[in-house]
Amino acid sequence: MDVQFINPVLKATNEILLTMAKLEVKFGNVRVKKHDETVSCKSITGLMSMASKDAKASIALTFTEPVILEIANKMLPESKHAIDGIVIDLVGEIANMVMGGAKRYLEEDGYSFNLAFPTIIMGSEYLIAHRTTAPVIVLPFKTRTGEFFIEASFEQIKKA
Amino acid sequence: MDVQFINPVLKATNEILLTMAKLEVKFGNVRVKKHDETVSCKSITGLMSMASKDAKASIALTFTEPVILEIANKMLPESKHAIDGIVIDLVGEIANMVMGGAKRYLEEDGYSFNLAFPTIIMGSEYLIAHRTTAPVIVLPFKTRTGEFFIEASFEQIKKA
Repeated sequence: MDVQFINPVLKATNEILLTMAKLEVKFGNVRVKKHDETVSCKSITGLMSMASKDAKASIALTFTEPVILEIANKMLPESKHAIDGIVIDLVGEIANMVMGGAKRYLEEDGYSFNLAFPTIIMGSEYLIAHRTTAPVIVLPFKTRTGEFFIEASFEQIKKA
Repeated sequence: MDVQFINPVLKATNEILLTMAKLEVKFGNVRVKKHDETVSCKSITGLMSMASKDAKASIALTFTEPVILEIANKMLPESKHAIDGIVIDLVGEIANMVMGGAKRYLEEDGYSFNLAFPTIIMGSEYLIAHRTTAPVIVLPFKTRTGEFFIEASFEQIKKA
C-alpha cells in the first residue's frame, strides 16, 4: 500500500465534501484496518473498485447516518431525517465524484483506470472485507454531527 | 441489460459451484430487482465490479448462511458451523473465480475487462444498491439447505 495512492483518494474526498457540501472535517489518525472490524451503527457505504492493467484498488467511504444526513441537508433542497432512496443516490454521486477525482490525480502519476460502478451498502451492522493482499488503510474523519471514514487498499500488479 | 451478459455470469457461477463444491442447484425465476429489496437474514455477499472501455458491470452473489456453510463443508477440510474468516476468504475465492469465468466468456463476445478486487459484505440485514442506469436482474437458486442469488447489471458505454 502506497501513500501515493492514499493521497489522491483523500484529496478527492476532501475537495468534494468541501465544495459540494461545505463540510468542514477534522482528520483523525490513519491506521491499518483489523480483519473483524464491523460497521456497528446505522451507516451507508459507497464501495468503489478500480482496475487497470497495472493496479487494482478497493475503496469504501462509510458515513454514519447523522453525518450523511448533515451532508444531504447541505446539498439537497428538501430536508432529510432518515436515509431514503434520494440519500442513497446522493452517496452514489459522491462515490462517483470521489472515484473521478482520484482517477484524475492517479492519471497525473501515470495510472490509467477504467471506473466501475460504485455499489452502495446500507445497514446497521455489517462487515466489509476488501479482498486485497495489501493492507487496508482507514482514514477517520469527524464532522459537527459525527464520524465517517475512508477505507482504501491499493495493489500494484507485478509484471511477469 | 443484455442477456448476452447474464449468461456468462450464470454459466460461470454454475460451473464453479458444480466443479468445486459438487453443489446441485435448482434455478428459480429471473426477475428485475426492486429498489428497496433488502437482505434480511444472515448472509454473505461477494460484490464484483467489472469495467472496460466499452462496458461496466456490477454483480453480487449473496449466499444465506446455511448455503455458504453447505458449500464450505463440501470444499474445506474442516467442518464449519458459522461464517468466519476462512468462510469469508472462500466467498472471496468464489467471487474471483466467477469474475474470471465471466471475463473469459465475455472475451469470446469481444469485451475485454480489467478485473477489480471483489468486496465481501456480511450481515443480517443490509441493502445493496447497484449504481447503474440499467435494470438489476436477480437470478435465484435453491440448494438442499436454502437459497442464494445472483444480482447482475450490465451497461454498455455509449460511444460519443
